[in-house]
Amino acid sequence: MPNAITENKRHSEVPSRRFVLAERPTDRIDGNTFRLETTPRAALEPGQARIVPLYLSLDPAMRGWLDDRPSYLPPVPIGGVMRARGVGRVVESRSADPLLAVGGLVVGELGWRDERVVDSTRNLRVVPAGCSDREVRAELGLMGNSGLTAWVGVRIGGPRPCETVVVTAAAGAVGSVAVQLASMRGARVVGIAGGPDKCAVLTDQLGFDAAVDYKAPDWLAQLAAATPDGVDVLFENVGGAVFEAVIDRMNNHARIALCGLISTYNDQSTSTGPRNFQRFLTKRIRVQGFIVLDQLDQLDQLDQLDQLEQARQELRPLLAGGDLVMLETVVDGFDQLPAALRGLFGGANLGKIVVRLGD
Amino acid sequence: MPNAITENKRHSEVPSRRFVLAERPTDRIDGNTFRLETTPRAALEPGQARIVPLYLSLDPAMRGWLDDRPSYLPPVPIGGVMRARGVGRVVESRSADPLLAVGGLVVGELGWRDERVVDSTRNLRVVPAGCSDREVRAELGLMGNSGLTAWVGVRIGGPRPCETVVVTAAAGAVGSVAVQLASMRGARVVGIAGGPDKCAVLTDQLGFDAAVDYKAPDWLAQLAAATPDGVDVLFENVGGAVFEAVIDRMNNHARIALCGLISTYNDQSTSTGPRNFQRFLTKRIRVQGFIVLDQLDQLDQLDQLDQLEQARQELRPLLAGGDLVMLETVVDGFDQLPAALRGLFGGANLGKIVVRLGD
Repeated sequence: MPNAITENKRHSEVPSRRFVLAERPTDRIDGNTFRLETTPRAALEPGQARIVPLYLSLDPAMRGWLDDRPSYLPPVPIGGVMRARGVGRVVESRSADPLLAVGGLVVGELGWRDERVVDSTRNLRVVPAGCSDREVRAELGLMGNSGLTAWVGVRIGGPRPCETVVVTAAAGAVGSVAVQLASMRGARVVGIAGGPDKCAVLTDQLGFDAAVDYKAPDWLAQLAAATPDGVDVLFENVGGAVFEAVIDRMNNHARIALCGLISTYNDQSTSTGPRNFQRFLTKRIRVQGFIVLDQLDQLDQLDQLDQLEQARQELRPLLAGGDLVMLETVVDGFDQLPAALRGLFGGANLGKIVVRLGD
Repeated sequence: MPNAITENKRHSEVPSRRFVLAERPTDRIDGNTFRLETTPRAALEPGQARIVPLYLSLDPAMRGWLDDRPSYLPPVPIGGVMRARGVGRVVESRSADPLLAVGGLVVGELGWRDERVVDSTRNLRVVPAGCSDREVRAELGLMGNSGLTAWVGVRIGGPRPCETVVVTAAAGAVGSVAVQLASMRGARVVGIAGGPDKCAVLTDQLGFDAAVDYKAPDWLAQLAAATPDGVDVLFENVGGAVFEAVIDRMNNHARIALCGLISTYNDQSTSTGPRNFQRFLTKRIRVQGFIVLDQLDQLDQLDQLDQLEQARQELRPLLAGGDLVMLETVVDGFDQLPAALRGLFGGANLGKIVVRLGD
């Protein structure tokens, strides 16, 4: 374990870097959205600890945090460090808390910066010692918000054996886990993703019963062919025309776990609800919006925390035993954060996308 | 009790009348939508009974049955008698079934015709003997689809004491019952209706805590003032701009009992889902579409029938004891059916609208 004083000296030689929100995007994130800033490294006060991120998580929800509108989390302020979850190592500590001893790994809101100084372990979770590098990344994916979101959403949708489940953004961080969990419940699972390569991953690696390529000209016919008995459960991540097409194929008393609407995040001025919204009524459909992210940090919502702890206990052995395939895209370099986030909205990633900071 | 033979002679002197669907409306129902037809009265076969409607029910859902599109009931065919529930009296009988004895009252799908010949009591419910005229009408309203719809929807919304419930089309057949049931659960109830007269009825007669006149220029400010603590439950009957405004005021984890979207029934080509559909996600809203109408006639759905029987058992003493105010509009004359249905979409009615056939 490195000596705290030595670490402090080494780190103080270079300034700290961070990406702040420079201006709110009106549409897509572009080169002007974020600004790289450097600041001198501050010496630690008594009780503080310095954390250096190993991996930072990129999530579709980040687009919403850039807008100055009411949402489930306050907007990132102009000039504020971009919010992001990450896994980091304690590199220096003046804290008496053994959980903040130098060398330990924690997961929590670290932000787009190459170090974070904390006063306590509030909102941080300790990563078990002895994890492999892959398991450390899983703390942001399968065992993190993405996996827990998939777990909660499948529970909301409640697929029964032989029912047909459709998962959109099925090759993404959440969708790729959701399908595997739905499949374990005995449902027939159809995934929708962009491009033949992703579709091949769905059926060959993830156990989807069928895949629909929404970028193909005949995607609507593919969807019809893949859902001969209609659709009973939709795990929705995207919105837009594909969402409407799936609604049209839903059976009476179908359920929608509304997890994301990524196709509508960039430009809300032109977005509408599904044009066939009336089907929710005529087919007695249940829609449940849900967000797992904020629940992780709200200690007053004990019921939900219990549920998430239950989810982790179920997911951990599945991951360790290799029963869950972990799709991931690892991007190298702190500087790549803005570009990697842009890529997320272009559908560039396969599975969970994380940025690895040089270490 | 009239003699069956005498009745038969008297009825056979005039032809039977019925309204059939002449053409499907593309927008609003107009003078060309229905056509009055007359046919000779057929003599009864053994086992049959002749029912003459006393009251026919008009419901917003009827608009949907005129469109040739998939829905929860098949469309009324061109040339087919318009579908409608009603209360009727058995005026002639060759049935051995005591429930079809001359003089008895039944409720069921009678259609827009001045008599219906039936072979059995299938899909008919017998009205208890000794009912007053008001109680007979209640079989179509409070104790019929409207009241049961309100009961089911309030149960779906699940308002808790001190929560804020908004009911749209609050002076209508369903809304006027829903508010009273929500109020009995200790919720604060806000009604939305068109015009100061209806709003006065809401607060003065039905016990609404506040009323919002959606036809007033300042309706949005009225809504904000009436819901200082946001909205926890919405009993939605209308759709459109008012729906969107209520969604904007919803609290996290709010519930929507999606009962109707009457503002969108006439012209579906321009209808969209709520433009702020994304709120369903960010506020973790639950939406449940439901239709009570078809459940009444589906004997295979025993769970739901049990639920409806439970509803009737709860509603009957409330009606008898005067704890539920029964708002109704009675229109006189078989000929008035098409005009009265048009009026329903213009918001002309207060409470349940029924057409009384000359008797």
